Amino acid sequence: MSAPHGFGDLAALLTPRSVAVVGASATPGKLGHTIFRNILEAGFAGPVVPVNPRAEAILGRPCTPSVDRLPAPVDLAVIIVPAEAVPETVAACGRRGIQGVVVITGGFAEVGEEGARLQVALADAARRHGVRVLGPNCQGLNNPHHGLCASWPLLTGRGRMAVVSQSGTVGAALMDWAAADGLGVSCFISLGNRADVDEADLLAALGRDPHTRCIALYLEGIKDPVRFAAAARACPAPLVVLKPGRTPRGRAAAESHTRSLAGDDAVAGGFLRQLGIHRAEDVEDLYDAARALAYLERPRGGRLLILTSSGGCGVLATDVAATHGFILPPPPPALAAALRAFLPGRCIIGNPLDLTGDATADWYRRVIELAAPHYDAFAVIFGDPIEGAADAVGATPVQCVTFLGGGGVERAERARLHARGIPVFPAPERGIRALTRLLPRAGVPGSPVRGSRFQE
Amino acid sequence: MSAPHGFGDLAALLTPRSVAVVGASATPGKLGHTIFRNILEAGFAGPVVPVNPRAEAILGRPCTPSVDRLPAPVDLAVIIVPAEAVPETVAACGRRGIQGVVVITGGFAEVGEEGARLQVALADAARRHGVRVLGPNCQGLNNPHHGLCASWPLLTGRGRMAVVSQSGTVGAALMDWAAADGLGVSCFISLGNRADVDEADLLAALGRDPHTRCIALYLEGIKDPVRFAAAARACPAPLVVLKPGRTPRGRAAAESHTRSLAGDDAVAGGFLRQLGIHRAEDVEDLYDAARALAYLERPRGGRLLILTSSGGCGVLATDVAATHGFILPPPPPALAAALRAFLPGRCIIGNPLDLTGDATADWYRRVIELAAPHYDAFAVIFGDPIEGAADAVGATPVQCVTFLGGGGVERAERARLHARGIPVFPAPERGIRALTRLLPRAGVPGSPVRGSRFQE
Repeated sequence: MSAPHGFGDLAALLTPRSVAVVGASATPGKLGHTIFRNILEAGFAGPVVPVNPRAEAILGRPCTPSVDRLPAPVDLAVIIVPAEAVPETVAACGRRGIQGVVVITGGFAEVGEEGARLQVALADAARRHGVRVLGPNCQGLNNPHHGLCASWPLLTGRGRMAVVSQSGTVGAALMDWAAADGLGVSCFISLGNRADVDEADLLAALGRDPHTRCIALYLEGIKDPVRFAAAARACPAPLVVLKPGRTPRGRAAAESHTRSLAGDDAVAGGFLRQLGIHRAEDVEDLYDAARALAYLERPRGGRLLILTSSGGCGVLATDVAATHGFILPPPPPALAAALRAFLPGRCIIGNPLDLTGDATADWYRRVIELAAPHYDAFAVIFGDPIEGAADAVGATPVQCVTFLGGGGVERAERARLHARGIPVFPAPERGIRALTRLLPRAGVPGSPVRGSRFQE
Repeated sequence: MSAPHGFGDLAALLTPRSVAVVGASATPGKLGHTIFRNILEAGFAGPVVPVNPRAEAILGRPCTPSVDRLPAPVDLAVIIVPAEAVPETVAACGRRGIQGVVVITGGFAEVGEEGARLQVALADAARRHGVRVLGPNCQGLNNPHHGLCASWPLLTGRGRMAVVSQSGTVGAALMDWAAADGLGVSCFISLGNRADVDEADLLAALGRDPHTRCIALYLEGIKDPVRFAAAARACPAPLVVLKPGRTPRGRAAAESHTRSLAGDDAVAGGFLRQLGIHRAEDVEDLYDAARALAYLERPRGGRLLILTSSGGCGVLATDVAATHGFILPPPPPALAAALRAFLPGRCIIGNPLDLTGDATADWYRRVIELAAPHYDAFAVIFGDPIEGAADAVGATPVQCVTFLGGGGVERAERARLHARGIPVFPAPERGIRALTRLLPRAGVPGSPVRGSRFQE
């Protein structure tokens, strides 16, 4: 564990050297137990102090009865005490020199007027004492590169995509999927009610994080659009946002959930587009876009070769690619001749290039090698149990891998690809849609081509 | 294994009492080996005879040198010999009294004129000898209820959805996913080049199958629209079709893949709609629609309650439900009071009904019980590690389950739900879209309401 680094005034939150869990519990099943245990089990390297006036020790660690009596100041306090006690606890943290606080407890603005008053008191305490507060009503944060899982479930996979979410579940789902895929995350932050820290603060902090190559956000509303726009423009990592509220019923549900003013969807869409922010269609699309942006290089242009062992998947991929502005040039004559020289006659040398069902990994490898100078990107679709498929795929030019219909061989090759940091998509349409996110677009940070034909 | 039952003239293909594998191979990795081994390992109960002139025995079974010298006629021959030899082999099967043939071998119409001539010869041989032929250039068939896996990969899960596909990979992907979910299939048939047996024949056969509750089809083109329309109208099972070729490039790819005349997409869409056939958006949607139609009852109407532990997922589900014509009435006052009596104050009693992150399975169960009289369907979204979630879900009224963000608990509960034949969707949008397939629609077989407001 390193000392707080470049996260600015969120360093105590995101990279603390020491943590207190206020409301740690000895009772398995309680959140105050789960979070305390997860911090220990994720392997946090610094002191972790349980604060509880009624317990001697929890999981072998001696308890401190209150924040005021902490033996030494800590960087971060994770608070799971009843809502009524939270504002005073935050004030106590400030008095004790604690600079970062996560409030897990719910029962604030999301439950009505009384809760809203408590939330104002919480924010006041934070401001008065110079404490940065994440939450309340949140699922905490997880920085696996720092060994800090102040959240649940316990996940420790270190990856390249950060997840910032107004929904704990949407964030947990992305983490779950990334963990199952062996990709991990760079950081997960559950925003909760955003009494203090908001998405603009996090873009500023995560933009400085060397581990974060892409930031996925679930936002029901943007708390401060002016600050958000400035932070988004300054953020070097590409951003992808899932924002519900496309229908009036959905907007009403969002306002009920997080008191977010979702606003007119077309306005929100235009706002995101102007900032060059990708907009996800649904939760899986958020995951797909984020892993494509985090793990794949950007193609120089839109010349795509669809390479497949499954004619059907080639057709499905073609429809999506053609709809999303890729160009699908057929192999030029010299390349076609070179391919014809070693591929069986039943292979269809076109675009899609169909190696047919008994394709080998070696055919894939040789086609990619020969075709590389002629294309900006490959959609590599393994549609059969192709042994060694993982060895056929490289990094240049961009290769977006889909694997399906391959049974046990697929599962083994998928794991090998993920271990190499190559995302694998489960269906041809999802692979192509994810690849679309990499196309040069006007206004997108890091995009080499401005005002090109790929502009949205 | 029962004697050939109600599959009509496809009984020898789909429910044979005995099988010959013509071109069975002793070499692992070859298709002639894989298929022979899969038939044995799937537990086929009748005789399975390898036909190979150059091997003594394969996997312990003595070989017969040729079809002509089979000791007794078999019902089904699976052919994996070079393309040039296939027409004469089919004729030999006919002479030997074999009524069903599957031709795995490729190299026919899909590779050009010479292949097309071979395919005509194959079809002629079939017609002259009264043999029904599946393929050529196909991935075989799998009828797990009959213990017959004349295909690959080896999958034996017995389920309720039939898969009929012009793409072996699309079919294998659906089977893989269904196997991973513990749902299985009722039957998988790879159509290949459709020299003889086509989708219309299979609708007629599968429509009589007591195990088949839904038929999922991947079709690049419909071979004989008039026969197909008649078969679809007569088929009691709901049908869902994935048909690519929405773009000119996609249509060209389809024509290159299976020589299917994909035709204008709007015409194809209108044709399917008139027949009350569901159209899938992509491969995952085909799977989702098929499992919803195969495993869930039809709601009487469109009154939906979204029940969730995740406010964010409730919002995402609301957007999709509102777009697809569900009505989302809030709980009526008496129900709201009854719910308020046992749910904590932080729960949001509305529609979506948000139980919040520490929801228990018992809360779900009690809400469903109390709300059942007021709704036609529930979208039950588990968005946290909710132990015992599988016990909270019943069958009436229709309950469409989504589970995400639940880590290890989710995986365990998901398996328990699947073991009960309850499909579990991985994201709220997919759950709702699948549920939409069950809404009463005009012209849909089994749909109780005609010309209702749910009409497409």
